[in-house]
Amino acid sequence: MQKKAVILFSGGLDSTTCLAIAKDQGYLPYTLSCSYGQKHSFELETARKAAEYYNVKQHKVVSVTLDSLGGSALTDNAIDVPDFSESENIPDTYVPARNTVFLSIALGFAETIGATDIFLGINAVDYSGYPDCRPQFLQAFEDLANLATKKGVEGAKFKIHAPLLELNKADIIKMGMALGVDYSKTASCYRLDSQGRACGTCDSCHYRKLGFKEAGLADPTLYS
Amino acid sequence: MQKKAVILFSGGLDSTTCLAIAKDQGYLPYTLSCSYGQKHSFELETARKAAEYYNVKQHKVVSVTLDSLGGSALTDNAIDVPDFSESENIPDTYVPARNTVFLSIALGFAETIGATDIFLGINAVDYSGYPDCRPQFLQAFEDLANLATKKGVEGAKFKIHAPLLELNKADIIKMGMALGVDYSKTASCYRLDSQGRACGTCDSCHYRKLGFKEAGLADPTLYS
Repeated sequence: MQKKAVILFSGGLDSTTCLAIAKDQGYLPYTLSCSYGQKHSFELETARKAAEYYNVKQHKVVSVTLDSLGGSALTDNAIDVPDFSESENIPDTYVPARNTVFLSIALGFAETIGATDIFLGINAVDYSGYPDCRPQFLQAFEDLANLATKKGVEGAKFKIHAPLLELNKADIIKMGMALGVDYSKTASCYRLDSQGRACGTCDSCHYRKLGFKEAGLADPTLYS
Repeated sequence: MQKKAVILFSGGLDSTTCLAIAKDQGYLPYTLSCSYGQKHSFELETARKAAEYYNVKQHKVVSVTLDSLGGSALTDNAIDVPDFSESENIPDTYVPARNTVFLSIALGFAETIGATDIFLGINAVDYSGYPDCRPQFLQAFEDLANLATKKGVEGAKFKIHAPLLELNKADIIKMGMALGVDYSKTASCYRLDSQGRACGTCDSCHYRKLGFKEAGLADPTLYS
């Protein structure tokens, strides 16, 4: 029987590449998108379409109202999404505990469908310095997952796969292209508008643009 | 300045005792209830009223649609909430990854308000054998919290407080009474009806009833 995997999926460049990798590794993909009050909620629509395009076994959307906590430019109307800057500081787009919440929900989904493999497209090279995108965070979550679950108690070993962790954006794009990813169907922008157009200047756009440039490939992104 | 704490709060016997303990220890309490598609959603109303009664600094409700994942008698209409049984197995009321999800949201809330202390009323004595109610789970979450957050990177140390972990229900009740908890204002039942009446026979009712009996105290619970 084909092994199931849960893929945290925003329909962006990274998670779509991640989905392609999971499929290439022979997993039966179950994509999971989180509606967390992100201002760029159009990404949920992109994710849904992309999940359909890639013919996943199931696409699940779980809502979690992290916007009610505030504290991030991505969810709090009182804080503007900033343009990319070279600062060493963790930017305002950091959402407190976001990846911990996402992975926890993915863990619940995985346990429900009988999967022990969870993929996420985080990256610790061309990234914004978020603490929950680091290898030691992932290892700690894996340890937690095995203690937190009925499956874990029964001896199953959960594995958190972050195949993009050590790659730069250009290499991610090249890998995805080799696997047949159509990046025109992905969206990464934090200010994505209601027609799916990217701003071109936020952190996420910055790294994506740079990736295509460094890979020497045409950028298929639709900019506003 | 009074130190802030987040208390995971269902308005039940355990979490209300936990709130009383946090207050007694001098913390400024911020209660957090999760609306996760539980069938006994009336507990959210009990929690709101109890938070008001105990005059907490802020009461926050975060929704997370765990019911869309299914797999638990507490959220899935296809699975009935069972009566208590002496079985060694983890019961159907187990919600995959629930405490991991709750603690993750609590971590996000804590980081947003500038708290590093999180209380939860889990218990590893008179309990249902849930894996995410064990000390090793809590330690793993604490390790994760420090790696997952901006605050953690900046050197803050998160502390997960589970003051009831090693107590039996009778001792929890006695401790709560000593701190002035009014248990008639708490509700623990998995089948709580829309008038806040308990079934008296589910796991949660079983342990609660036994607790009052063993403590030699009158049970103020409203049964249906």
